[in-house]
Amino acid sequence: MDGVLASIYPQLIKFEFEASGKRIHAEDMIGRNEEEVFPNFHAHLHTDGFFETAPVIPGSQEVLEALNEQYEVFIVSAAMEFPKSLSEKQNWLNRHFPFISWKQMIFCGLKTPIQGDIMIDDMFKNLDHFKGRGILFTQPHNQLLDPKNNTRVHHWSDIKSLLLG
Amino acid sequence: MDGVLASIYPQLIKFEFEASGKRIHAEDMIGRNEEEVFPNFHAHLHTDGFFETAPVIPGSQEVLEALNEQYEVFIVSAAMEFPKSLSEKQNWLNRHFPFISWKQMIFCGLKTPIQGDIMIDDMFKNLDHFKGRGILFTQPHNQLLDPKNNTRVHHWSDIKSLLLG
Repeated sequence: MDGVLASIYPQLIKFEFEASGKRIHAEDMIGRNEEEVFPNFHAHLHTDGFFETAPVIPGSQEVLEALNEQYEVFIVSAAMEFPKSLSEKQNWLNRHFPFISWKQMIFCGLKTPIQGDIMIDDMFKNLDHFKGRGILFTQPHNQLLDPKNNTRVHHWSDIKSLLLG
Repeated sequence: MDGVLASIYPQLIKFEFEASGKRIHAEDMIGRNEEEVFPNFHAHLHTDGFFETAPVIPGSQEVLEALNEQYEVFIVSAAMEFPKSLSEKQNWLNRHFPFISWKQMIFCGLKTPIQGDIMIDDMFKNLDHFKGRGILFTQPHNQLLDPKNNTRVHHWSDIKSLLLG
């Protein structure tokens, strides 16, 4: 969800500026983890509204709606670490992805028990444990890394080409 | 979670009596779904506090704590249908099962994407899709049914014997 459907980086930049006055630029984030870049990273994730007001990643709504017609889609989000995020994330999905029903939502701590044929994620810690086909969604923290055995995509249009032919 | 860790039947009986004055007895529930037995079933599940104040099923705390030492345990709950239940269920787990970390919690709609070696559940709709070993926890709604290819257990002491030797 974060980094694939929800645009978390612009949200972190905004919250960091509001909290500390520090301006983070896109190039500051390349190849670095969020914790290194944003001094108040964990505080932001515990702030009311952080998840609920996150922008949608361009193209995700149209392409996911089309995928949802041809595939059995589940939205799996590592949400448990941030208790406030549970209802915010469900509200956010209902608002921006109304074609995704509650039956298709999974909020977890670790994603290791999740099985499937294809996983789209921006984090190696999730893809590395997955037995199906991995699709790495480019985000600044992973853009310098070898995609390993995953297919790298930069935009939802790449996912459309890959999975909707 | 419900029907294995959380004692949902006494909770439904209490909420039904408070809502309608109707007294449901344990024997009314045998072999029947909750929807048939409790006229206000869905309303109860949407009522504040329903999940958070549910009693703990006897033996579950001690045996699950011991299992947690020897197995990689995940608590998987079909919670998404009832948005209020998300935070209530997390609070409930934190209170009654403090040895279970947020990393081990999964709240979902369907349990079909969950993989593992063993699943303990009271519902065939969850066990039927599971590729590992199924353990059917006896509840009134399932007690007349053939356990199919699952091992039936009546109490947490049975789980202790089965999995902790």
